[in-house]
Amino acid sequence: MKKHNFSAGPSILPDVAYQNAAKAILDFNGTGLSILSISHRTKDFEDVLNSAQALMRELLNIPENYHIYFVGGGASTQFFHIPANFLGKKAGYVNTGVWTKKAIKEAKLYGEVEVVASSEDRNFCYIPKNFEIPTDIDYLYICTNNTIYGTEYKSDIDSPVPVIADMSSDILSRPIDVSKYAVIYGGAQKNLAPAGVSFVIIRDDMLQKVVRPLPTMVNVNTHVENNSMFNTPPVFPIFVMNETLKWIKSIGGLEAMYKINLEKAQILYDEIERNSLFRPTVDQPDRSLMNICFVMAEGKEELAADFLKFATERGMVGIKGHRLVGGFRASCYNALPKESVEALVACMQEFEQLHK
Amino acid sequence: MKKHNFSAGPSILPDVAYQNAAKAILDFNGTGLSILSISHRTKDFEDVLNSAQALMRELLNIPENYHIYFVGGGASTQFFHIPANFLGKKAGYVNTGVWTKKAIKEAKLYGEVEVVASSEDRNFCYIPKNFEIPTDIDYLYICTNNTIYGTEYKSDIDSPVPVIADMSSDILSRPIDVSKYAVIYGGAQKNLAPAGVSFVIIRDDMLQKVVRPLPTMVNVNTHVENNSMFNTPPVFPIFVMNETLKWIKSIGGLEAMYKINLEKAQILYDEIERNSLFRPTVDQPDRSLMNICFVMAEGKEELAADFLKFATERGMVGIKGHRLVGGFRASCYNALPKESVEALVACMQEFEQLHK
Repeated sequence: MKKHNFSAGPSILPDVAYQNAAKAILDFNGTGLSILSISHRTKDFEDVLNSAQALMRELLNIPENYHIYFVGGGASTQFFHIPANFLGKKAGYVNTGVWTKKAIKEAKLYGEVEVVASSEDRNFCYIPKNFEIPTDIDYLYICTNNTIYGTEYKSDIDSPVPVIADMSSDILSRPIDVSKYAVIYGGAQKNLAPAGVSFVIIRDDMLQKVVRPLPTMVNVNTHVENNSMFNTPPVFPIFVMNETLKWIKSIGGLEAMYKINLEKAQILYDEIERNSLFRPTVDQPDRSLMNICFVMAEGKEELAADFLKFATERGMVGIKGHRLVGGFRASCYNALPKESVEALVACMQEFEQLHK
Repeated sequence: MKKHNFSAGPSILPDVAYQNAAKAILDFNGTGLSILSISHRTKDFEDVLNSAQALMRELLNIPENYHIYFVGGGASTQFFHIPANFLGKKAGYVNTGVWTKKAIKEAKLYGEVEVVASSEDRNFCYIPKNFEIPTDIDYLYICTNNTIYGTEYKSDIDSPVPVIADMSSDILSRPIDVSKYAVIYGGAQKNLAPAGVSFVIIRDDMLQKVVRPLPTMVNVNTHVENNSMFNTPPVFPIFVMNETLKWIKSIGGLEAMYKINLEKAQILYDEIERNSLFRPTVDQPDRSLMNICFVMAEGKEELAADFLKFATERGMVGIKGHRLVGGFRASCYNALPKESVEALVACMQEFEQLHK
């Protein structure tokens, strides 16, 4: 049976990335060696690393005064790297759910945190808007897409202070204006790569803004100065990232990707609205294109377990919602084919017929 | 042409690990999904993680009062995690080269460092012995195998204070007495896995010895309490690690592995001693089984570039010595077949014939 992989992360990657990764494990680039067993100091691997950086720069239209680096440890590590480097006295955080809460917790170890805005009052089902950004903070921190709650910022914020954004789960899903951010970072295990590598895009002036002495691996300068090679980087995840970036370019870049993502999301949100058994959980303007959350309609709650079983039997994978929201979450990352969304919609319609 | 992979790391892994990794990328465990795209919270992956821990425990004979966890960021990250967690006032470090120097640098950010012993006087070509271990230090830190200089501790140290050991490059190459260590850690990209994951083996009592408030990802308790799953772990490197551990078990465990490693090293060191063109760089008792360093014999220095070319043309990969030692380094990790050592020896003999 064909599987439809809606996992929230690690998540589906393009077929060509799987094929080329499997090949490179047996023979990388005609070297007679496995990609798992080559020195990161070889030209063959440096070419991969440089290609991944160049493609990311090209696809996201990253200005020249920004650096890109790749590092292990996941976004959870960046949660403390950011304040360790940049929180001198006070930082502003917009609280849109679990991941910003975790980031806030780490920041408090380094200084004062002002929660500038929050959507906690309604279980994070919307993105706060029109909040005032204080000018006495070192930076404003946001998470652009909230994997658990299915909310997403739809525009780049104008801010009088540097904006630092966790884009783990919507990076490269649509064009953004990088110049509005001081730092963009994320775990790569959604739209980019298997688990094990994070990306950091950092504006040049931030390198001079490190506020305290830091361990070498925590200091952002280390990774910029050494072009992600201060220590052995996660070679294989970077290889797969490069394959994924090549694939995004091949289908037409971020404008094309965005169009496809909009279409997939529209199909699914339309069905959620239409289907008498389901309802969406997120305010209409803030619905994520990447993580589409829905629950059973009022009065139909007892059908939730049945639907999960029904859908699982038809090849849907990873659609159980996070326990903090309940219901269902279909993650529709870049590499998820439209056919998978259509298969899920067919499932929902079939299930509705059975429970009319 | 068959390649003989002597890379210092990332380095050669067993063939079966490559084969199974390539397969799992296309279909993991009959799930119809790629190992690169499954949730780390699935039972399928938890089984892999638990298997890797159990095999490591079995192979190293790790007592029950030790925990094992896997985490990203490399040994360079552990260089500061160790003192961040455990250096209250003063720690003792044995300086055996680049990697302990780096660890000492990170430790100084957290407290006083006493260099208890050092082999810097002779460019780190030996392991200091019979040094006194102070009793007023929080821990004694050593690196059991020095990849760059080719030195290796041949026995487990008796110490009145907790011993913390970086075993990045000789873990699982021979039996050790884990009970003599408080913490053993390492990057896994030599004997265990592709780059992107580190292992930490930690005695239970150390969990109560954390000396300061720490970022969540830095605190050792986080990873023990969450069984390596506080955040998304490096799924694929852990999968490959499990395959490698299964292979070590299949060949007979660490006693068998050690015997093979001894034999490979003996063949190569014997040739280095015998061959009139080469000489070893390390004092006899401290020669590493993993990283075998040698240079041109006195008066033959001008042949170095020729030999590198000669050997490279015959399929030898990664034998150029580190610039700090010069000459050559043949890394003979677990998965390097004896045939590769024999091929290198044949190369050395052929080269000698040409330059008689």
